[in-house]
Amino acid sequence: MTEYPLPLELMIEQLGKLPGVGKKTAAKYAFKLLSMTPEDLEHFTAVLLEGKRSIRSCRKCFNLCTDELCPVCLDEERNNGQICVVEDFKTLMAIERARGYKGRFHVLGGALSPIDGIGPDKLHIAELAARVKDGEAKEIIIATNPTIEGEATAMYLMRLLKPLGVTVTRLAYGMPVGADLEYADEVTLMKALEGRKEI
Amino acid sequence: MTEYPLPLELMIEQLGKLPGVGKKTAAKYAFKLLSMTPEDLEHFTAVLLEGKRSIRSCRKCFNLCTDELCPVCLDEERNNGQICVVEDFKTLMAIERARGYKGRFHVLGGALSPIDGIGPDKLHIAELAARVKDGEAKEIIIATNPTIEGEATAMYLMRLLKPLGVTVTRLAYGMPVGADLEYADEVTLMKALEGRKEI
Repeated sequence: MTEYPLPLELMIEQLGKLPGVGKKTAAKYAFKLLSMTPEDLEHFTAVLLEGKRSIRSCRKCFNLCTDELCPVCLDEERNNGQICVVEDFKTLMAIERARGYKGRFHVLGGALSPIDGIGPDKLHIAELAARVKDGEAKEIIIATNPTIEGEATAMYLMRLLKPLGVTVTRLAYGMPVGADLEYADEVTLMKALEGRKEI
Repeated sequence: MTEYPLPLELMIEQLGKLPGVGKKTAAKYAFKLLSMTPEDLEHFTAVLLEGKRSIRSCRKCFNLCTDELCPVCLDEERNNGQICVVEDFKTLMAIERARGYKGRFHVLGGALSPIDGIGPDKLHIAELAARVKDGEAKEIIIATNPTIEGEATAMYLMRLLKPLGVTVTRLAYGMPVGADLEYADEVTLMKALEGRKEI
């Protein structure tokens, strides 16, 4: 039986490193790349390398950016005494897409997970505490994920930051807008009940 | 609203050129690539470029290979007078994976499609006719796809090659093994009926 030529096998192996890409999809991607002109493929790879070279973390909040400080940290209008703490850049972008939030951010770079060896020193927690001590914020809004790790991180931050004299808040739990109550899980439903508001 | 840094936007744009990859998936891929070490990403792009550089078409049958001739053409045991004509390399691989076929191949590089401007001169048809005239094959097995274009190509090849004194055959139509008759489409079912065999 003929097999894929070795260089094609190697391409498939590399493309299989992309998240959620199995051998079949990787082969489809490889054929597509082989069908490009050499110039287009050169450009494709050059853009990936240039991205890696030029994208770095904001020195202050660890948002992704291309300069020392990210656009959010540079924007003086967003210096309103609020810092929203997120696990990663993707959450930051989700909050930005929702618009409405006008404060600054702090990207932790993950959540506490002792089982995976991720302690407070592996996250940008010391830098957050330093920002609080510098008096940059009056309110810390914790927007870690509603998972066990995210909850543990929120508790840890609350205990660390409250003694520094800031208000520490957590995103509201409740029903997602547009959801069907019938299909809600029990925990969310209980949290929504606890958090009920007079209308 | 903050947006993705420009180099990240450009990465997402390039990754979006992969088949079936939308903006969200491209972003997921970009984050994965950014999380790699510079060395790993260098290796990733180098393998893609090296694949493009070293993979070419077999001079005789247009199978993908790294030398002048592909392993199938070089294998003297497969010189049994049969040439299986396929649209592309992926079909060739599918037939190889099924094992059992011991002849050679000819990759057309597509199917006739006047509406897309693909006439016989855009496919490797002249080269196939030359192989037949050279007396390389006694039987040409046409394994183009069972689509309108594949059928048209099969008809065209049949008319072109039969006068050259070879047997021209077509893959059998019928029910896929393991399929449920209840859900078969009418055309396949009719073809399966027409092609029925005494048992």
